[in-house]
Amino acid sequence: MRYKILVEYDGCGFHGWQSQNDLPSVQSVLEDAIYKLTKEHCKVFGGGRTDSGVHATGQVAHFDIEREYHPMTIMRALNHWTRPYPISILDVVNVPISFHARFSAIQRHYRYVIINRAVPSSLYKNRAWHVPKPLDVRNMQIAANYLTGQHDFSSFRATHCQALSPIKTLDTLSVTMNQDMITIHASAKSFLHNQIRIIVGTLVNFSNNNIPSEQMLNVLHVRDRTKAGVTAPAYGLYLEHIDYLHDL
Amino acid sequence: MRYKILVEYDGCGFHGWQSQNDLPSVQSVLEDAIYKLTKEHCKVFGGGRTDSGVHATGQVAHFDIEREYHPMTIMRALNHWTRPYPISILDVVNVPISFHARFSAIQRHYRYVIINRAVPSSLYKNRAWHVPKPLDVRNMQIAANYLTGQHDFSSFRATHCQALSPIKTLDTLSVTMNQDMITIHASAKSFLHNQIRIIVGTLVNFSNNNIPSEQMLNVLHVRDRTKAGVTAPAYGLYLEHIDYLHDL
Repeated sequence: MRYKILVEYDGCGFHGWQSQNDLPSVQSVLEDAIYKLTKEHCKVFGGGRTDSGVHATGQVAHFDIEREYHPMTIMRALNHWTRPYPISILDVVNVPISFHARFSAIQRHYRYVIINRAVPSSLYKNRAWHVPKPLDVRNMQIAANYLTGQHDFSSFRATHCQALSPIKTLDTLSVTMNQDMITIHASAKSFLHNQIRIIVGTLVNFSNNNIPSEQMLNVLHVRDRTKAGVTAPAYGLYLEHIDYLHDL
Repeated sequence: MRYKILVEYDGCGFHGWQSQNDLPSVQSVLEDAIYKLTKEHCKVFGGGRTDSGVHATGQVAHFDIEREYHPMTIMRALNHWTRPYPISILDVVNVPISFHARFSAIQRHYRYVIINRAVPSSLYKNRAWHVPKPLDVRNMQIAANYLTGQHDFSSFRATHCQALSPIKTLDTLSVTMNQDMITIHASAKSFLHNQIRIIVGTLVNFSNNNIPSEQMLNVLHVRDRTKAGVTAPAYGLYLEHIDYLHDL
């Protein structure tokens, strides 16, 4: 039996989705909870890998177990056994074996949150990146527009990124502001490692240093990570939603 | 010299605005920080008292000190000395001695946040009230409308409330929903103790038990605290903004 789950978590409570060592990862916490319910060892496959500190409001994962359970039983049990951790299982559905949380995904939606004011926020601590210098949201959007579409994103890729190709298609990159909160939405079928965080760091760098927006084309074409901005902090990033063909 | 400050804080980090004993309150933490800058003992007056757990995004306070400082010096020093606590001083201005954070206020705006879904939220833990049963926001708004205007709010008043009169004018009480988040905005010149939290608990009770909205009139007219709903948890409430005449 294959089950698809919808998961929310506070990324600061985990060492990423997937953990190399014995530190608690979202994946390992879920696998332990499934074992406590089923006494079966299974592997949980995530739809979007999130680094340590990255949050999720709509992570999707799947796993296979021998015995059949009512989805509500699984949902209750997983929420019970994961209780010490900041994770919530929002939905559980039985899916055909052809469904794969990672490979069936057709679009991934992320949100990056910046608090743009002189003083850090107490209420958004570990929930948003604090950028003190006033940002020009309109110019950030103009610079962002150079990045949508299909490009070689080598400049916006972590040096340890393992993707086979640096060519990705960025479908949406919007920059909006509401009072002192700037939200950057990014959507694509898939992303390179740290792609969104490096894009955000570069947009902030452009605004902070009054770099003309059209210079974004040069950063893109030079295909050199050192020409882009810093990698924005993980705790400002949220995996919001993953689209699958059968959702439509 | 009188200074007016704008303050944000996570209510879970304090034992309320004003503390009876030696536990850290927002007021005592601010007074200690002012002392560390000025070596003067002063009293900080808050514009809206917040109970233990209640947050603020726009609390206003004032205090008097002998020596004159540049407002920016005060802002930097207070943010420095309050650093162990989840509090941010967002603005400091010099005001005439006629300004009083509490008595000059003409309108106070609060927001109450509910997460309305089966499973509690990990990201909004201590930031919103989790109500699992689906709420009918439209009916809640209809019931809420009976409460706006000038009324005797004895049914919506904590038993230990010290206000001289139970008569208050509630100018705004709106109930809106965005995905699984319900936001209740309440505005008035002043409120009774726990008035908003009891109103929220009553609106949720009405929806949970399909009580006809017009029954709200009876709850109001009976002037009996036991006829209203539970006091909604403190951590869902935010003091958002206080209006003063000279802001207009």
